[in-house]
Amino acid sequence: MLARLFCWMLSLACLALSPGVHAEDGYDLWLRYAPADAARADVISRHATAIVAPGDSATLKAATDELQRAVAGMTGTKPALSAAPSSGALWLATPKTAPSLPVKMQALGPEGYAIRSTQVEGKPVTLIAANSDIGLLHGAYHWLRLAQTGANLDALDIMSAPKIGLRLLNHWDNLNGTVERGYAGQSIWDWWRLPDYKGPRYTDYARANASIGINGTVLNNVNAKADSLTAPYIAKAAALADVFRPYGIKVYLSVKWTAPMELDGLKTADPMDPAVAAWWKAKADEIYRAIPDFGGFLVKANSEGQPGPQDYKRTHADGANMLAAAVKPHGGIIMWRAFVYAHDNPDDRAKQAYSDFKPLDGQFADNVIVQVKNGAIDFQPREPFHPLFGAMPKTPLMMEFQITKEYLGQSTHLTYLGPLFQEVLEADTYAKGKGSTVAKVIDGSLDGHRLTGIAGVANIGVDRDWSGSIFNQADWYAFGRMAWDTGLSADAVAREWAAMTFSPDPRVVDPVVAMMMGSREAAVDYMTPLGLAHVMATGHHYGPGPWISNLARPEWNPVYYHKADAAGIGFDRTRTGSDAVSQYAPPLARRWAKPATTPEQDLLWFHHLPWTYRLKSGDTLWDGMVHHYDRGVAYVADMQRSWDSLRPLIDAERFAQTEAFLRIQRREAQWWRDASIAYFQSVNRLPLPAGAAAPEHDLNWYKALSFPYAPGHN
Amino acid sequence: MLARLFCWMLSLACLALSPGVHAEDGYDLWLRYAPADAARADVISRHATAIVAPGDSATLKAATDELQRAVAGMTGTKPALSAAPSSGALWLATPKTAPSLPVKMQALGPEGYAIRSTQVEGKPVTLIAANSDIGLLHGAYHWLRLAQTGANLDALDIMSAPKIGLRLLNHWDNLNGTVERGYAGQSIWDWWRLPDYKGPRYTDYARANASIGINGTVLNNVNAKADSLTAPYIAKAAALADVFRPYGIKVYLSVKWTAPMELDGLKTADPMDPAVAAWWKAKADEIYRAIPDFGGFLVKANSEGQPGPQDYKRTHADGANMLAAAVKPHGGIIMWRAFVYAHDNPDDRAKQAYSDFKPLDGQFADNVIVQVKNGAIDFQPREPFHPLFGAMPKTPLMMEFQITKEYLGQSTHLTYLGPLFQEVLEADTYAKGKGSTVAKVIDGSLDGHRLTGIAGVANIGVDRDWSGSIFNQADWYAFGRMAWDTGLSADAVAREWAAMTFSPDPRVVDPVVAMMMGSREAAVDYMTPLGLAHVMATGHHYGPGPWISNLARPEWNPVYYHKADAAGIGFDRTRTGSDAVSQYAPPLARRWAKPATTPEQDLLWFHHLPWTYRLKSGDTLWDGMVHHYDRGVAYVADMQRSWDSLRPLIDAERFAQTEAFLRIQRREAQWWRDASIAYFQSVNRLPLPAGAAAPEHDLNWYKALSFPYAPGHN
Repeated sequence: MLARLFCWMLSLACLALSPGVHAEDGYDLWLRYAPADAARADVISRHATAIVAPGDSATLKAATDELQRAVAGMTGTKPALSAAPSSGALWLATPKTAPSLPVKMQALGPEGYAIRSTQVEGKPVTLIAANSDIGLLHGAYHWLRLAQTGANLDALDIMSAPKIGLRLLNHWDNLNGTVERGYAGQSIWDWWRLPDYKGPRYTDYARANASIGINGTVLNNVNAKADSLTAPYIAKAAALADVFRPYGIKVYLSVKWTAPMELDGLKTADPMDPAVAAWWKAKADEIYRAIPDFGGFLVKANSEGQPGPQDYKRTHADGANMLAAAVKPHGGIIMWRAFVYAHDNPDDRAKQAYSDFKPLDGQFADNVIVQVKNGAIDFQPREPFHPLFGAMPKTPLMMEFQITKEYLGQSTHLTYLGPLFQEVLEADTYAKGKGSTVAKVIDGSLDGHRLTGIAGVANIGVDRDWSGSIFNQADWYAFGRMAWDTGLSADAVAREWAAMTFSPDPRVVDPVVAMMMGSREAAVDYMTPLGLAHVMATGHHYGPGPWISNLARPEWNPVYYHKADAAGIGFDRTRTGSDAVSQYAPPLARRWAKPATTPEQDLLWFHHLPWTYRLKSGDTLWDGMVHHYDRGVAYVADMQRSWDSLRPLIDAERFAQTEAFLRIQRREAQWWRDASIAYFQSVNRLPLPAGAAAPEHDLNWYKALSFPYAPGHN
Repeated sequence: MLARLFCWMLSLACLALSPGVHAEDGYDLWLRYAPADAARADVISRHATAIVAPGDSATLKAATDELQRAVAGMTGTKPALSAAPSSGALWLATPKTAPSLPVKMQALGPEGYAIRSTQVEGKPVTLIAANSDIGLLHGAYHWLRLAQTGANLDALDIMSAPKIGLRLLNHWDNLNGTVERGYAGQSIWDWWRLPDYKGPRYTDYARANASIGINGTVLNNVNAKADSLTAPYIAKAAALADVFRPYGIKVYLSVKWTAPMELDGLKTADPMDPAVAAWWKAKADEIYRAIPDFGGFLVKANSEGQPGPQDYKRTHADGANMLAAAVKPHGGIIMWRAFVYAHDNPDDRAKQAYSDFKPLDGQFADNVIVQVKNGAIDFQPREPFHPLFGAMPKTPLMMEFQITKEYLGQSTHLTYLGPLFQEVLEADTYAKGKGSTVAKVIDGSLDGHRLTGIAGVANIGVDRDWSGSIFNQADWYAFGRMAWDTGLSADAVAREWAAMTFSPDPRVVDPVVAMMMGSREAAVDYMTPLGLAHVMATGHHYGPGPWISNLARPEWNPVYYHKADAAGIGFDRTRTGSDAVSQYAPPLARRWAKPATTPEQDLLWFHHLPWTYRLKSGDTLWDGMVHHYDRGVAYVADMQRSWDSLRPLIDAERFAQTEAFLRIQRREAQWWRDASIAYFQSVNRLPLPAGAAAPEHDLNWYKALSFPYAPGHN
């Protein structure tokens, strides 16, 4: 023990010398396995004296490799693999390798696991039990999370299984290497050099996802190119699938509706045309020959200019079911997106998806799941949950969150999305009375669906830190953790992430988590307070553009969403307006029909109100808006102070990045506040409340700003 | 000593354990400073017991930091900084800090250095002497090169100073992050997050360049956007200049001729218009306020659709001189590219730059240098040197090499460019009789110019290994080393690079250098043997397209360059043809006028010959071509065998990358060979020589290939 400790201290000293030890650049994400202090290293060592993992699958090897690498990193000593449980060993077992495990195995399902401190022939061991090697891998990552976060490793008795079956990333990655709404550099898929070259990053991607329970990835943009279905690109996708398979991650592809016409000259893409159905059947067969466990297709059809079955007077169900028949023999599924709105439809954009899909409830094949964005517009800082949740009981609905922050500050704003995810998942649809939460809709429990899913639009790129900033990694982490367990709180997830990413030291975790937890509300405050939405600049959606009114389609213009005029502001979605409220269950429709009973956070989403409307604070609506803008800016300044106080406790490289990004966020929060106030004041001509500073520039200055090279806008 | 050795061995053991030690991923380039074996570590330690470097400039700190980091990496012990020379110390001194140095200081110039094993008060020290701290930095990197490559560190007596003043990288990087002809990922310039965020990669870029003597960088594409001259982008460039300054690297910008019209609404860009001259003067003043040591402008004008002075009936000299006047007060220069050819000029494209620029000799201002590509066409695997070299004695000419391998296999072919650089630099122009080499033209010695320069189009991107492959790093390295010392041989440079990049072990260096040295000739053989050129596919220039004849401009079509018909092949540039030979000095014009006296490597560049023409080998031209194609393919197969034999001596990650890329190169060399033979055979109807295999597919198969997402084509 002493000898090991000595070697450990010495190795720490030597490590510090070596240039081979790269700085903390964020590449290792929450899997850093940094050296623990001596006391903690000793605790971990005593609980990982050896690793017992009978079997030889690639997945089991991934689990034992990760455990060895992690324990070696944290303690300086790499635990040996041994055949039989010895005192202090980690024992990975399935019913195949250990018939009579002291665990209710059926409760674990195919992916879950149990972790239990127990004894084998009188020797204390930590048992990780599962029905499959994938379950063991998830269990190993859970134990490592406990080890990294300083948890007690004695008397463990944990059972965990995911409530949702499909936990997917959606990559909006293009074949030319750009990423739509990507703010972390180019695509990590090096399509050009695949399948020959499979760099180490693919494996690290799989490790990171497996560590948080993600079990599938859609490789290409929903605005898909037909080329991704050609033989060369199928071979490239197959090469990635080979890398991901041991980690329990399936590959999926987005498809373009007109692929049969573009690739093979068919005259039509009508889903009722036998030649079209045959083409997709043959294409599915071709894909499954290369990728036997291929997951299925994701489809964006008849949306924002994409072709689809409606071009042939067919319904979304007609289209989805034709594709479903093609993949069904192989066990594949179709994820059909409900994000639709039509240029020729004058109705409130927030209502159109419901109007299109609600009537189709019950018409989808049993291997189709409809993918619905969390809100009815488009990934805003805050939206009420999408009215389709709870409205299609006969159809499995899949949640689509956006991890990449198209509307929440993109790469440089610290706006932790955990609270947004939690708010949506906990939202009560009242579809079957109180407690019919969105979480219960998508986990299938509310309506008894076995096909369940949740997707997050990835924030991953080739930036060394994967996500464009260290703190953006927390959004990837939170999505995976909350997809596995929709009951987790954003706060608990943030604590795990901060401890693993920076240090388990509470002097670090507490302030970092405090910064994170209020950061999304701060973005709401400085961008879209009180239920405002979609007031971002055109196209790249970077920065404020509430004045924009010149775009071809009304629903592309911010003025369409805030409807500000001399008298008031807000979108009337009550009976006197678009009546979008009637798409929700009666208790909500009633609550949101009146300003007084509408939560102020959604006030202007549902109501057009006079500037003089009185908020609960006693402020007029206008004064309240200004106070929200100021509160958002002030929060960012507070984050800067908190971060600065952490300088002694954070490595230089990651400290400097966050410091620089907070400086940008502070400036841009002020810009949002000033530009918004300058514009709305030009409409309402009202004075600012006492103590509020005038905008730094006049409105024309803000209108004149342009950003021709804003990222993520392809 | 023993104690240190013990700690060192132990630390090596511990390092091996630690996940903190990242795999060899190529990021460290030739500055890995990997642990040396004990004997070598001891040698290095004895010659770096301490570092004496009086002074406190950022440049001096860069030098001492690098020495400490490197020695610590190689030996495990970090040498201390000490005030006075002690036994075994490295002593960095300038005349300012040590008035009477035992070195002819004037011979070192502003950037050069001396390294000498000497004594101070009886104590043996290694003196690094220079006239400036930048010289000391270069000297430090030279000493580290000796330490890394296993050189004897006793009795050193080295003096080195660059013959060429401007040693620049040209980045063809666009403001949207793409890189024209970039095969290593996006631009490393994170324009969007500059100037606030200056990531560590910028410093490592400066370190790498300083280590090989590069002293300037043109940040943006010669196909420039006017936006790069706006205030926000000047601030971004200034932030980079601040990072690079301590490393002796100046920042330059490419400019768009019509910027005054695009940015400020001027009615004209006529260089003789006072308002235009005043605009550039004011713009230069603005830039120098932000970047006091700004280098100057690089200009691509009236070339490939770019605007320029000829649009206003002015000459290139008129344009260059107007810009020169704007930067002159600040000590700036103008680099004016001679790469021009006009869509309305029916003359041989190879002749047009000469025809345009030769008459302007003597008309350029004294702070203008004309940048000339190494050959008259465009960075082909082989071209005769550009006829302008030696033809403009009154004008300083700057060499433009292309480090990124647009025409030599892009990111995945191992084609070391050192031999190409050496071949061009050693080429004799005969401008002032025998020995008037291209090197003497560009180093100014032939015609007595003080303004001298050499530029390399960078192969750098955000790929972790910077250059798209480990072996592509050698081209960056060779460019810098041969720019500093045009007399270095490609072989010597390859040996340095291989030793630093992989290991000084001759079992590694010898085979790696052997692979490298023949690799460029192999590419010539399988792509463009016997003087053929520009037969690559359209646009992306990836792969063969000798059949292409349908492009708008004749000189864009491969058939324009090879002129193959039933009777023969080759471009007649003698008096019976375009007479391009007459643009060269008489001895060369005479030599190249006749096939018999033309080196076979340039045969079809200068002559159109019957397929039955007899080569020196006795082969007919056609049989000889086929043999060259086969030789090229065979060389790649040999490289694969050599590399496979190195598996035990190379780290896994870098071994696997090169193994995969050689597999791609082998397949693509075969593709080049087969497609070229299939096409030329369709023209000449000749049988293949005995033993030559028929192409794998028929011509139509090769013609049908398309690569819509080929990289680098923006």
